[in-house]
Amino acid sequence: MVVEPTAAPETPPELTALPEAEPKPRDILIINYSGELEKVWATMLLASTAGAMGMTCRVFVTFWGLQNFVKDERRITGKNWMQKMLSFMSRPGISHRKLSKMNFLGMGPWMMGTLAKKYNNPSPKELLEVAQSMGVVFIPCQMTLEMFGLTRDDLIDGMAEPVGAATVLGLMSEGSAPLFI
Amino acid sequence: MVVEPTAAPETPPELTALPEAEPKPRDILIINYSGELEKVWATMLLASTAGAMGMTCRVFVTFWGLQNFVKDERRITGKNWMQKMLSFMSRPGISHRKLSKMNFLGMGPWMMGTLAKKYNNPSPKELLEVAQSMGVVFIPCQMTLEMFGLTRDDLIDGMAEPVGAATVLGLMSEGSAPLFI
Amino acid sequence: MVVEPTAAPETPPELTALPEAEPKPRDILIINYSGELEKVWATMLLASTAGAMGMTCRVFVTFWGLQNFVKDERRITGKNWMQKMLSFMSRPGISHRKLSKMNFLGMGPWMMGTLAKKYNNPSPKELLEVAQSMGVVFIPCQMTLEMFGLTRDDLIDGMAEPVGAATVLGLMSEGSAPLFI
Repeated sequence: MVVEPTAAPETPPELTALPEAEPKPRDILIINYSGELEKVWATMLLASTAGAMGMTCRVFVTFWGLQNFVKDERRITGKNWMQKMLSFMSRPGISHRKLSKMNFLGMGPWMMGTLAKKYNNPSPKELLEVAQSMGVVFIPCQMTLEMFGLTRDDLIDGMAEPVGAATVLGLMSEGSAPLFI
Repeated sequence: MVVEPTAAPETPPELTALPEAEPKPRDILIINYSGELEKVWATMLLASTAGAMGMTCRVFVTFWGLQNFVKDERRITGKNWMQKMLSFMSRPGISHRKLSKMNFLGMGPWMMGTLAKKYNNPSPKELLEVAQSMGVVFIPCQMTLEMFGLTRDDLIDGMAEPVGAATVLGLMSEGSAPLFI
Repeated sequence: MVVEPTAAPETPPELTALPEAEPKPRDILIINYSGELEKVWATMLLASTAGAMGMTCRVFVTFWGLQNFVKDERRITGKNWMQKMLSFMSRPGISHRKLSKMNFLGMGPWMMGTLAKKYNNPSPKELLEVAQSMGVVFIPCQMTLEMFGLTRDDLIDGMAEPVGAATVLGLMSEGSAPLFI
C-alpha cells in the first residue's frame, strides 16, 4: 500500500520523544532488618551517601533494626515482662550495637570504631544524623513497635509515621531499588 | 503543515495511551536463603502481604531456606550419612526455626511467638498458608535439593517445580524487584 | 467513525514497535557484604551464572566480603596491630571461609564441600574463576581497603579499581537489579 504524502499527519511530539526518553532514576529503598553493628553501618553509609547525592532514599526499619533507632539513653523498653527482658538481653540504641562475629566482649566494635576514626570514617550515629539532615526518611515498622512494646517516644526524633509491609511492597512495585540489610 | 481533518486517522488506542501509561508494576522476587526464625518471618510477612495486594510474588527457596519448607513431621532427611547428620544438627520444618541470636534454648522463639499471638500477628506457618492460598509461588532450588538429599516428598505440598540460579537471574533481569533474605 | 483505508498512513516502524518493545534487560549488581561460606557461595553461583548467561554483572565487595578476595596464601594482613589482629581472628581467603552456623571446627564446611563435589557443584573458588573468565567485574570497596589496611597486592588478580558507596547507589538508581548478600 502506498501512503499519500498529503495524508500523512505529523507525528505528535510526545510520541517522537518517547524512544529517546531517559528512564526516570529509581528511588533507593533500604529495609534495615538487622541490629548488628556492621549492618547498621552499611545502612547508614548508603543512606547518608544517597542523601548527599540528592537521591530520594527511604529506610524502612523493622525487627532487630528498630533497636538502632531507640534513644541511646533508654535502657529497658517495653510494657510487659517479655518485652522488657528482650530489651535487657540486647541493649537498644545505635551506640550499643555489637558485631555479628568477633565481638569479644566489645573489643571488636571498639577496634572497628578506632580504625574508622583513624581513617576519618564517621560512626553510624554521625552518619544517621547526616542522613536525616540530607532528607533521608527513616520509617519505623508498625508491627515491630507493637511486638516490642515500643512507643514513638522511645525512638529518636525525626522519624516518619509507622507503616507496614504493604507500603514497602508498594514502593518496590513502583520501581524503588530495594536492599534488604 | 496543515493536516486535513478527513485525512487524519484516529491514533490507535494503544499509541495514545502510551505517553501517559504508568510503568508496569514490578513483580516481587524474594530469595529466601536463611533458615533463621526472624528471616523466615520476614519472608512470609512480605510474601503473604504481596499476595493479598494482588501482586505477582515468587519466593525462590535455597540453601538454609529450604529447611523451612521441609514438612514439620520429618525429623531426619537425606540419603547419605552426611546429609542425615546435617538434618540432625539443624532440625528442618517451619515450626522448628531458631532465632539468629537470643535463642536461649528456645526461650527467645517462644517469647516471640507469644508476643506475636498477643498482638494478633500470625505465625510464619500461618503466613505461609495464607501466601500459598493468595497465589504466591514457592520455588525450591534444584541444587540445594540435591546437596541436602531432599526429595519432593520431603517438602510441603503446593511448591512449584525446582529451578536453578538462571531462572532467578532471568526474573531479575526482566524487572522483578529482588530481595535477598 | 470509519477510517478510510486510503487515508490511513502506515504508522512509522519505531512507533508500531513501541508497544511491543521489550524493556532493556537490567544489569545485575551484587553487594557481597558477608564473609561466611554460604553467602560467598551464593554470590559466586549467581555471579558465574549471570556471566555464563551473557548478562552484565558487577559484584561490589565490601566489609567482611573483602576477606573472600584476599589471596589464599596471605595469613596476616594490615598495617597496624588492630588490623593485624582482625586478620588473625578471621583468616582471610576464599578457601578459608566458615559457615555462619554448624561450623563445628570445620566439619560443616568440609561436609558441604564433600557434598558439593559429590553432586558436581563447583567450589566458591572455582566459581569465582569462572565468573572472572565470563566477564563478571569484582570491585573492591575503597573504605574497607583502608579500614582493614589492605593493599591491592593483598587481593586476588583481576579486580577492578576500588570505588565507594556513591558508585553502587548510582548503578542502582540507573536500573541495576541489586542483591545485598
